[in-house]
Amino acid sequence: MPATLKDVAIRAGVSPSAVSRTFTDGASVSGKMRRKVEKAAAELGYQPNFLARSLTTRRTKLIGLISNNFHNPIFLEVFDLFTRGLQDRGLRPLLVNLSDETDPDHSVQMLHRYSVDGVVVASSTLPPAFAKAFRDKGIPVVSTFGRYSSSPDVHVVSIDNVAAGRMAARALIERGYRKVAFLGGPQAATSTQDRLHGFLQALSAAPEVAVDHSFADAYSFQAGRREMQRLASGELAEAYFCGDDVLSIGALSAIRDTGRRVPDDVGLIGFNDMEMSGWENIALTTIRQPIRQIVTSSVELMCAMLEDPDRYPEARLFPCQVVERATLRPRP
Amino acid sequence: MPATLKDVAIRAGVSPSAVSRTFTDGASVSGKMRRKVEKAAAELGYQPNFLARSLTTRRTKLIGLISNNFHNPIFLEVFDLFTRGLQDRGLRPLLVNLSDETDPDHSVQMLHRYSVDGVVVASSTLPPAFAKAFRDKGIPVVSTFGRYSSSPDVHVVSIDNVAAGRMAARALIERGYRKVAFLGGPQAATSTQDRLHGFLQALSAAPEVAVDHSFADAYSFQAGRREMQRLASGELAEAYFCGDDVLSIGALSAIRDTGRRVPDDVGLIGFNDMEMSGWENIALTTIRQPIRQIVTSSVELMCAMLEDPDRYPEARLFPCQVVERATLRPRP
Repeated sequence: MPATLKDVAIRAGVSPSAVSRTFTDGASVSGKMRRKVEKAAAELGYQPNFLARSLTTRRTKLIGLISNNFHNPIFLEVFDLFTRGLQDRGLRPLLVNLSDETDPDHSVQMLHRYSVDGVVVASSTLPPAFAKAFRDKGIPVVSTFGRYSSSPDVHVVSIDNVAAGRMAARALIERGYRKVAFLGGPQAATSTQDRLHGFLQALSAAPEVAVDHSFADAYSFQAGRREMQRLASGELAEAYFCGDDVLSIGALSAIRDTGRRVPDDVGLIGFNDMEMSGWENIALTTIRQPIRQIVTSSVELMCAMLEDPDRYPEARLFPCQVVERATLRPRP
Repeated sequence: MPATLKDVAIRAGVSPSAVSRTFTDGASVSGKMRRKVEKAAAELGYQPNFLARSLTTRRTKLIGLISNNFHNPIFLEVFDLFTRGLQDRGLRPLLVNLSDETDPDHSVQMLHRYSVDGVVVASSTLPPAFAKAFRDKGIPVVSTFGRYSSSPDVHVVSIDNVAAGRMAARALIERGYRKVAFLGGPQAATSTQDRLHGFLQALSAAPEVAVDHSFADAYSFQAGRREMQRLASGELAEAYFCGDDVLSIGALSAIRDTGRRVPDDVGLIGFNDMEMSGWENIALTTIRQPIRQIVTSSVELMCAMLEDPDRYPEARLFPCQVVERATLRPRP
């Protein structure tokens, strides 16, 4: 049988409450008392139990980490950063797979049953109603990669996707492309809508450049490849802004299958700068979304909300930048 | 305030214990009673709380899913399959990132504090002592992708890596390669050791074929690329068996940088058949490890262990097969 808190108290010759305080972050206990308790605990192999403790604190330290795309390699980086960040703060990431889920109510019930202290919705394709549904049930929620709003319903840690769309348009205009297009992600995703909006906005100020757009049905390699195959059956644009990196890699494979060279015949710029985009056999010119800062800030905001659940919703937006590699021709 | 079990009992006009039985899998309750309770619960928006329930059942339904490699895209598929499989059985996957961890004792303490019902060690690079350390503390454990042993300490769901190494050797011999090599993963990984062992074993029966081997320092793109760059500064073999797919893709990029063509100048066979290996711009010939069956079986075994923690340790091994694509020359 594992040693209990009471066993440690008896061995250390102190009260059970002193043992409890020793193992509670931020509780008051003298250095001498702490040493006595830690010695007894070590001798007995005692481990404080979060479950038992959660009865008194009403905290489980469980944070639901919600994802709905396991076919986009960037999420492996996102999971890596979230699990490290949450673990470093004594929180426990419960990975929730909503790949086939469309009903916010069902997800809220599920996370409620799971007794999570809070929820991170790490998706730009789940509708904003998802994050809001958690808030409405009193569950602290951060929408990571969610849509910016000037009057947010929930905390959002993300980028300004409209500004990012403008950045992509300027990158293509500067390089002298005169016929460009957006190959977006799913049309219903707010990230797709906003990037397209910014892209068209910047191009409306450059009437000498022809512009077109279409959508892939998912942020995945095969979706990007299929859409580019469809486009390549007609006349291609000189350069494409793709909705994200994994779409770009799919689109690149389809372009090369037609015998066209990148960037000589067709240029392409992606979005995210996932690890793989820097692999030497991919070398994708892209727009970097600062994933590490976004995740770190999301974890900080979640911790702040656990302290103060009534905290006023805020939007934290991080700047993007163009990363030059091998899929756009150089600036003149 | 959310409705409690007691609120439901009062509204339904039944005992609290009847409400509890209604929401406990396998507990006895009449159809009439169940309907009364479910109606009252629906009216009050009552959700059974796993945390409160875990006090009586001493079960948290939390399963620690341990990974230590977030740079190998295959783990996104592994996480997808595990989260779906565990969720379908009412279990909750707690994702534990041990990328920087080397001390089994520290990990056991961590998972013990997390109050997990069981642990899946999903790694072929963590030493066998990791899984055994959980068992020694009485925590049910499955070693997924772990090493087969005829007298296993813990449940292992995996493949026969020695047989897989022989399969790779035969694939190269059959295609007429007469100078072959193994570019392995980390030398300390049991998967690397066993695949090399089988590879050399099969080649010892083919004395006309010259064989060599070396190791990358991780299962990652950059590790495979660096090792192949080092090899390419000397004379290359005619064909390589790479430790896994992500290493293969790194090695391919290094080979192509030297101007050599694959498979005309150098052949290459990978291992795993991760989703990306089938992308048309990669088209890696590889050996398929049946990930889906391995994960499904791991979840089944975990469930069986939660019923019977003293279940005798078993090894479940699944067969592999060669997947023909574009990086080895065809069989004559």
